[in-house]
Amino acid sequence: MSSTASLPAYTSYKNIIVSSPNPFVAHVEINRPQKLNAFTQELWLEFGRVFKQLSGDEDVRAVVISGAGDRAFTAGLDVQSASNDGILSGSQADIAKKAKIVRNHIEEFQVSIGAMEKCEKPVICVLHGVSIGLAIDIACCADIRICASNTRFAVKEVDIGMAADIGTLARLPKLVGSTSWVKDVCLTARDFSAQEALSVGFVSQVHEGKQAAVQAAVALATTLADKSPVAVQGTKELLNHGRDHTVAESLRYTQVWNAAAVQGKDFSSALMSGLKKTKPRFEKL
Amino acid sequence: MSSTASLPAYTSYKNIIVSSPNPFVAHVEINRPQKLNAFTQELWLEFGRVFKQLSGDEDVRAVVISGAGDRAFTAGLDVQSASNDGILSGSQADIAKKAKIVRNHIEEFQVSIGAMEKCEKPVICVLHGVSIGLAIDIACCADIRICASNTRFAVKEVDIGMAADIGTLARLPKLVGSTSWVKDVCLTARDFSAQEALSVGFVSQVHEGKQAAVQAAVALATTLADKSPVAVQGTKELLNHGRDHTVAESLRYTQVWNAAAVQGKDFSSALMSGLKKTKPRFEKL
Amino acid sequence: MSSTASLPAYTSYKNIIVSSPNPFVAHVEINRPQKLNAFTQELWLEFGRVFKQLSGDEDVRAVVISGAGDRAFTAGLDVQSASNDGILSGSQADIAKKAKIVRNHIEEFQVSIGAMEKCEKPVICVLHGVSIGLAIDIACCADIRICASNTRFAVKEVDIGMAADIGTLARLPKLVGSTSWVKDVCLTARDFSAQEALSVGFVSQVHEGKQAAVQAAVALATTLADKSPVAVQGTKELLNHGRDHTVAESLRYTQVWNAAAVQGKDFSSALMSGLKKTKPRFEKL
Amino acid sequence: MSSTASLPAYTSYKNIIVSSPNPFVAHVEINRPQKLNAFTQELWLEFGRVFKQLSGDEDVRAVVISGAGDRAFTAGLDVQSASNDGILSGSQADIAKKAKIVRNHIEEFQVSIGAMEKCEKPVICVLHGVSIGLAIDIACCADIRICASNTRFAVKEVDIGMAADIGTLARLPKLVGSTSWVKDVCLTARDFSAQEALSVGFVSQVHEGKQAAVQAAVALATTLADKSPVAVQGTKELLNHGRDHTVAESLRYTQVWNAAAVQGKDFSSALMSGLKKTKPRFEKL
Amino acid sequence: MSSTASLPAYTSYKNIIVSSPNPFVAHVEINRPQKLNAFTQELWLEFGRVFKQLSGDEDVRAVVISGAGDRAFTAGLDVQSASNDGILSGSQADIAKKAKIVRNHIEEFQVSIGAMEKCEKPVICVLHGVSIGLAIDIACCADIRICASNTRFAVKEVDIGMAADIGTLARLPKLVGSTSWVKDVCLTARDFSAQEALSVGFVSQVHEGKQAAVQAAVALATTLADKSPVAVQGTKELLNHGRDHTVAESLRYTQVWNAAAVQGKDFSSALMSGLKKTKPRFEKL
Amino acid sequence: MSSTASLPAYTSYKNIIVSSPNPFVAHVEINRPQKLNAFTQELWLEFGRVFKQLSGDEDVRAVVISGAGDRAFTAGLDVQSASNDGILSGSQADIAKKAKIVRNHIEEFQVSIGAMEKCEKPVICVLHGVSIGLAIDIACCADIRICASNTRFAVKEVDIGMAADIGTLARLPKLVGSTSWVKDVCLTARDFSAQEALSVGFVSQVHEGKQAAVQAAVALATTLADKSPVAVQGTKELLNHGRDHTVAESLRYTQVWNAAAVQGKDFSSALMSGLKKTKPRFEKL
Repeated sequence: MSSTASLPAYTSYKNIIVSSPNPFVAHVEINRPQKLNAFTQELWLEFGRVFKQLSGDEDVRAVVISGAGDRAFTAGLDVQSASNDGILSGSQADIAKKAKIVRNHIEEFQVSIGAMEKCEKPVICVLHGVSIGLAIDIACCADIRICASNTRFAVKEVDIGMAADIGTLARLPKLVGSTSWVKDVCLTARDFSAQEALSVGFVSQVHEGKQAAVQAAVALATTLADKSPVAVQGTKELLNHGRDHTVAESLRYTQVWNAAAVQGKDFSSALMSGLKKTKPRFEKL
Repeated sequence: MSSTASLPAYTSYKNIIVSSPNPFVAHVEINRPQKLNAFTQELWLEFGRVFKQLSGDEDVRAVVISGAGDRAFTAGLDVQSASNDGILSGSQADIAKKAKIVRNHIEEFQVSIGAMEKCEKPVICVLHGVSIGLAIDIACCADIRICASNTRFAVKEVDIGMAADIGTLARLPKLVGSTSWVKDVCLTARDFSAQEALSVGFVSQVHEGKQAAVQAAVALATTLADKSPVAVQGTKELLNHGRDHTVAESLRYTQVWNAAAVQGKDFSSALMSGLKKTKPRFEKL
Repeated sequence: MSSTASLPAYTSYKNIIVSSPNPFVAHVEINRPQKLNAFTQELWLEFGRVFKQLSGDEDVRAVVISGAGDRAFTAGLDVQSASNDGILSGSQADIAKKAKIVRNHIEEFQVSIGAMEKCEKPVICVLHGVSIGLAIDIACCADIRICASNTRFAVKEVDIGMAADIGTLARLPKLVGSTSWVKDVCLTARDFSAQEALSVGFVSQVHEGKQAAVQAAVALATTLADKSPVAVQGTKELLNHGRDHTVAESLRYTQVWNAAAVQGKDFSSALMSGLKKTKPRFEKL
Repeated sequence: MSSTASLPAYTSYKNIIVSSPNPFVAHVEINRPQKLNAFTQELWLEFGRVFKQLSGDEDVRAVVISGAGDRAFTAGLDVQSASNDGILSGSQADIAKKAKIVRNHIEEFQVSIGAMEKCEKPVICVLHGVSIGLAIDIACCADIRICASNTRFAVKEVDIGMAADIGTLARLPKLVGSTSWVKDVCLTARDFSAQEALSVGFVSQVHEGKQAAVQAAVALATTLADKSPVAVQGTKELLNHGRDHTVAESLRYTQVWNAAAVQGKDFSSALMSGLKKTKPRFEKL
Repeated sequence: MSSTASLPAYTSYKNIIVSSPNPFVAHVEINRPQKLNAFTQELWLEFGRVFKQLSGDEDVRAVVISGAGDRAFTAGLDVQSASNDGILSGSQADIAKKAKIVRNHIEEFQVSIGAMEKCEKPVICVLHGVSIGLAIDIACCADIRICASNTRFAVKEVDIGMAADIGTLARLPKLVGSTSWVKDVCLTARDFSAQEALSVGFVSQVHEGKQAAVQAAVALATTLADKSPVAVQGTKELLNHGRDHTVAESLRYTQVWNAAAVQGKDFSSALMSGLKKTKPRFEKL
Repeated sequence: MSSTASLPAYTSYKNIIVSSPNPFVAHVEINRPQKLNAFTQELWLEFGRVFKQLSGDEDVRAVVISGAGDRAFTAGLDVQSASNDGILSGSQADIAKKAKIVRNHIEEFQVSIGAMEKCEKPVICVLHGVSIGLAIDIACCADIRICASNTRFAVKEVDIGMAADIGTLARLPKLVGSTSWVKDVCLTARDFSAQEALSVGFVSQVHEGKQAAVQAAVALATTLADKSPVAVQGTKELLNHGRDHTVAESLRYTQVWNAAAVQGKDFSSALMSGLKKTKPRFEKL
C-alpha cells in the first residue's frame, strides 16, 4: 500500500490515492495492491470520477498515475468480482435484452477509463510489474507512457475468449508505428517487455525499477506544471483533436481555439519573459 | 514449385496452392514460380476467390501466404500478359470511355487483392526473394508481415510511369511509423532490405531464408488457431475498423460487436478455463 | 547569405532565393541568415507565393528547401517584428473582434506555410542548425525530411505561452510512430537531436553538417526529377489524400485519378522502356 | 401547473413532472409555468437526469414531452437566473480562463439537453404557445414533433447577441428540407407559425390547441409502446446513427446491430404472430 | 405476368424480366406476381446480378424498374421461403456463431439490393400497389421515384419485430426533407399514400394507375437515354458521392472526375451542337 | 445596365457593380447584361475577389446579389469566350497533362465562386429571368435564395455533355428536401419554374418581378444588418460547419467558437437591451 495520504479533496475514494509530490502535480495510485490492483466495478467508477475531478481542479496542472505496491500496475479486470455480473454468470435473459445490457455495461466502463483521456491536464502513466489487459487500455488513454524495466505487458483479452473492448484496439494502433507489431501482440495475447515497448514507441522511457520510473514521471510532470497551463492544456486538446480529424479540420479548429487562448495573459507574460529573460508566472486555469 | 498438394476443397485453382501444415491452419502459395509468381488477370481473380473461400471455411482459423519456389514472393504484374489489355496496348477508344474501362479494371483488381484484408481470419504474409510492386500491395493487406533476410522489396510503380493503384499508397502509411520513409521509397521506387523493413516496422520478424520464415509463420498461425476464433476474428475486425474511424466511433462499434460476441460459448469457456487452469476447447466459427 | 543567385523567374522575392543545382531541381533558401532566418509576415507571404509558383512551373520536378547560412534553418517567428501586430501589442479591440482578427491571421499564416504541402512537386526539407518553432511546422509540410547532425530541434511554442498553431500539432503525429514521444516534445518544448529525430522516424537521413545534407537532398531530388512527373506527382497526391481518408475512399479516388493519368504518354513510355531496357524521356507536366 | 402527479420513481425532480397516461408511456412536463417554463441551471440538469432515467426504465417504451400550463412549451433560458453566472455578469477573469469556463458551461448544457436524443426510447415533442430559443434546441432532440396551432416558434438567439449553441444550428438543417428557410429563421430570429413549421417539415402534425396535440402525441406514443421494443429502439438507434454516417458505414453498423437483435424473442414472436394473425406480446427491454 | 419477353442477353433470370421499350432503355420487372413479387433468396441474388449486368451493358443508358402484374411492386421478403433460413427457424447454433451468420446474410442481401444504386446508369423506380418492407429499401436505391396513385407504402419491418436492415434506415432520411415524418413512418410501420409520398418528396411524380406511371417512367428514361452518357453517368456518380462526403471533398473529386470526362468526345460534340443548334450523337459508353 | 454607381472601394471591377442601398448593406450586381450576364474568366476571377473584399469590409454586414438588367441573373458560362481555353479548343497536349490543366482550371473556378460561401457576411441571392447553369452553382453558395416569378431555372450542364462541376452537384442535394427531384432536374437538364423552386424549398420567397424580389432581398438584408454582427456571422459559420460535420463535432466546435464570441460586447449589449427594452448598438466587426 502507498505510504502517502490522499490530498484533502480526494479522501472519499476507497480504491484510489491522490497525493501531491510537487506543487500543481497530482499522483494517482490505483490502490488494491493485495489484488494486483485488479479492477472491480467500484474501482473503475472511482477511476472515472477522480479524473473528472482532477480535470476541473485549478491546483493540478499535471498528473502521474501508477499502481500502488511493487507487484503490478494492474492485472486488469477482477474476474472473481466481475462474475457477479449477469454477463459472466450466464443469466437467462433474452439475447436481445442481454445484448443491451452488455452494450450499456461496456459503455459505462469505456467512459470511466476514457475520463483520463478527457482530463484537460496532461497525464503521465507509469507502467510497472504486471501490466496486462485493462492496464493497456488505461495506458492508451495517457499522454506519455514511462515504464519500469521489469514491466510485463500483455493485451490479454484474446486469452479470455474476447476482443478487448475498453479501448486498446481503438487507440493502440494510433499510438505506435508498426501495425504488424500491434496485430501480433493483440492477436496472440503474448507478453512483451519494457524494451520491446520502448523500441516500438509505446513507452518513451524505461527506468530501472518502479521507484525510478515514478521519480522520472514526477520530474516530467513538474516540468509541465511549470509551463503556461493555457499552452499545455491547449496543446493536449489540439493533439487529441488531430488524431481523429483531417489536417484541414484540425487547422481550422486550431484557429478557433487560439482565437480565445492567445488573448489570455499567459501568452503575453511568456512572450515578454522570453524577451526579458525572466521567469513568467502563470495564473490558475 | 511447391511440393505440397492442395486441400481437396481448393483443387480448382490453377495458380494457387492451398495446403494445411497444421489443423485449422491454411498455407496459400502463389504458384507461378517460373514467372517469379507474376500476376496475370487469371491469377488475381483466383486470389480474390481463394480468400473469399478461406473466409467462410470453418476449418480454417489462420492463414499463411507465401510465393512458391525460392526466387520470389512475386515480381508484381505480369507485364507481358497485361499488355493484352486495351489499356496498355493503346487501343483507339474515346478518352472518356477508356477512363471508364480503366476505373472498372483497377476496381476489379483492388477488390481481388483486398479480399485478403476482408478475409475474417488473420493472415500472415511471408515475403521472400523478389517482392516488388504488387508484392507490397498484397503485403499491406495482411495482418502480420514476416520476411526472409534475402528479401528484395520495392514500391516499383513509379518506374513504370504510374502511381501505385492497388492499395500500397492507401495502406502503407497507416502500417508504419515514418511518413518520411514511406514517401522516400514510394517516390524513388528504390529497393529496400529486410533489415530496413524491420527497422521501420513494416515487417515484425526477419528470418534466415524463406524456409525459416515460413516455419515461423506457420508456428505463429498455429498459435492463433489455438485461440478462441470468436476472440481472434473479433480482434481482427475491430483493429481494421479502428484504422478508418475515430476512437469514439470505434468504441461504439466495439460495444455493439461484443454485445453478441461475449454471449457465445468461447467467452465463458475461456474464462472458466482460466480460473480452473485447464485448456479450453473452441467450437468452429 | 547564399552564394547562388535566384533563377530569373524567381528574382522578385526579397527573403527567398530559388536556384537550380540540377535540371528540373529547384533549391529554395530562406534568406534572412543574419536573423537566424526568422519569419516576418513579409517572409511567410513570400513563402506561400514561391511554392504556388513552383507548383505551376513546368521546369521544376522536385524541390529542396533549406535555410541560408550555417546557423539556422529557421529560429521561427520573428517576435520583434510580430509584436507590431495588434495581437501581440495588446490593442484595445473588443474580444470578439480580436478573436476574428486572430482567426484570420492564423489562417493566412497556415495557408502560406501549407502551400509547400499543396505544391504538386515533391519537396525535400533539409533541417540544420537552429530548427525550432515554425521550423517544425514547415518541415511537417515537406514530403521527405533530411537533417544535419548538428540540428537543434524544438516544438517551442509552449514556451511562449501558446499551443503551436501553424500545423505541427495537426501533422506531426501523422508523420512519426510514437505518440508518447510526440506529446513529450510538444508539451515540454524541450530540444531534441538529429539522432532522436532519426530514431523516431521524423527525418529519414542524418548527414555530417549542412553541406552534406544539402548535397544528399539535391541528389535525391535529382533522382526524383529523372522519373515520370505523372507518376511522381500522382504518388504525392495519392499519399497525401490517403492521410486524411479511409482506405476505401483512397482506393476509389485512386481509380478516378489513374483513369486519366495512365492514358498519358509517360505510362506507355516507361513501360516500353522497361521492356526494351532503354531510358525513357518524359514530357513536361 | 399540471394536474397530474409524478410516477413514484420520478418524484425527486423539482421542475419536472413525469406521469404515465397509458401503460409503457411516460409524459414529461417542464413545470415552471409561472415563468413560461424558462430554464434555470437546476432545471436543465434535471432535464438531463430525467431522460437518462427514462432511457433505462423497462416500464417506459415511448415518451411524450410538453410544457406545463397553457402559455408556453418554454420561453428558453431564464435570463434573470442566468445572469448570476459569471459569463453574463461580466466577471473579471482572464480571457483564456473565461473561455474555458464558457466551453465547459456550454458542454454541460448541451449534454443535458442532448440526453433526450440519447434516450433509447422514442420521444414525441409537443410544442405549444411560446416555443422560442431553447425550445427549438430541445425539439430538435426529439424523434417526432407535433404542435398546437397557436405555437409561436423562433430561433431567438441572434436577438440576444449570440449564435445558438445548445444544438439548433447543428441539428435543425438535418431535420428539414430547405436550407434557405433554415438560414432565414436562424439569421433573422423572426417568429414562425405552426403552419409554416408543418409546411417545411419541422413538425409532422398540427392540432387545434395544446390539449388536442398532447392527446395525439399520447395516442402515437401508445402505438409505439405496443410494438416490439427491440424493433422500435433499434430503429431509433439506426436512424440516429445514419444521420452522422455514410450509407456504407450505416449498412455495416446495421449488420452488427441486428446480429444480436434478431436473435431475441421479439423477432420470432412478431414473425409468428404475423403468420398466425395473432397479437404478439413483447418482453421488457 | 408481364407480356414482354426478356432481351436475349437477359433470358437466364428466373424471376426477373428485362425488356427494352425504347432504344438504350431497359425495363426491369420483378416477376413473381402470384406471390405479390415477394423476394426469395434466389430472387434477390438475381436482382444483384441483373443490375451488375445492366451497369456494364453499353446498349443500356437508363433503366426503369417495376413489379410485374397489377397488385404489387413487391410485398417484401417472402417470409414462408425465408423461414427455411437458420435465422428464422431457431436453429441451435452458438450465439456468436449465429451472429456471424446473420451479419454475413444481411451483408449479402444489402449488396444485392445495393447493386441498383451502384449501377452506373440512372434508375427510375415505379412503385405501384403493395409496396412495403423491402419495396422501400429498393426504392431508396433508385435515382428517381415515380408512383401510381393506388400505391400502398409502408416501412413495415417494425411489425415483424426488427429494425429494417437492407438500407431504408440508412438512405430514407437522406432522400426526403422531414426527419419528423421519416421517424413517424419508420417507428409506427403505418401505411402512407402516394399523395403523402409526393408531399414529403419521396416520389417526384404520381400517376393515375400503374400503366400511366410506367409510361411516364419510360418517357423520362428515354429523355435520359438521349443525353450524353458521359454527362448523365458522371452526374449520377457525383450526386451519389456528394451524399456521403463534405462539399470540399466532393468539389475535389469532381475536378479529378471531370479531368478525364471532358476530354471525351461527348463534351465537344454537345458543345458544338449547342452552338450550331444541331442534335449531337453520342458514342456508346 | 444598372443605374447605380459602385461604392468608392469597389470601382476597380469591370464586370461587377457594388452599391449600398442601405447602411451596412451591399448590393452586388453581375454586370454584363448585354451578354445575359454570362461569365468570362475575367468575370469569375472578379467574382472571387469581390466576395473576399466584402468578407473583410467592416462597413458591410449583409449582401444582396442579383444580375444587372431585366433578362437574366446569368445564362452561365460564356461559351464563346471559354472556347479560347485549351480545354474546349481541342489542343494537342498529352492526356495526363491536359487532365492536370483541367483539374487546376476547375479548382480555380470553384474557388472563385465558392468565395461567396466563404464570405463571413450572410448573402441573399436574387434569381430572376434566365438563371441556368452557373446560376445554380452560384445560388447554391448563397445563404438565402429569393426569386422573381419569371425566373427560368435549369441545371443545364448535361446538355453540354458534362457533369456540372462548379458546385451544384455537391451542394444542391444538401439544400433541398427531395433527392428524387434533385436527380430529376440534374439528369434531365429540364427547366423548372419559380413556383417549383419554392415548393421544393430551393428558394424561400417568390416575388412578382425582379424589382420586387430585389426590394424584398434588400429589406431582409437590412434586417440582418441591424442585428449583432457577432451573432449573425457566428450563426452563418456554425450552420455552414454543421452541413459538413456530425452533430457531435458541431456541438464541440460551437463550444469553442462561442467561448470567444460571448465575451464580446454584443452579447452583453443585446442582453441588457432585451431586459431594458432598448435598442442595442453594435460595434463594427
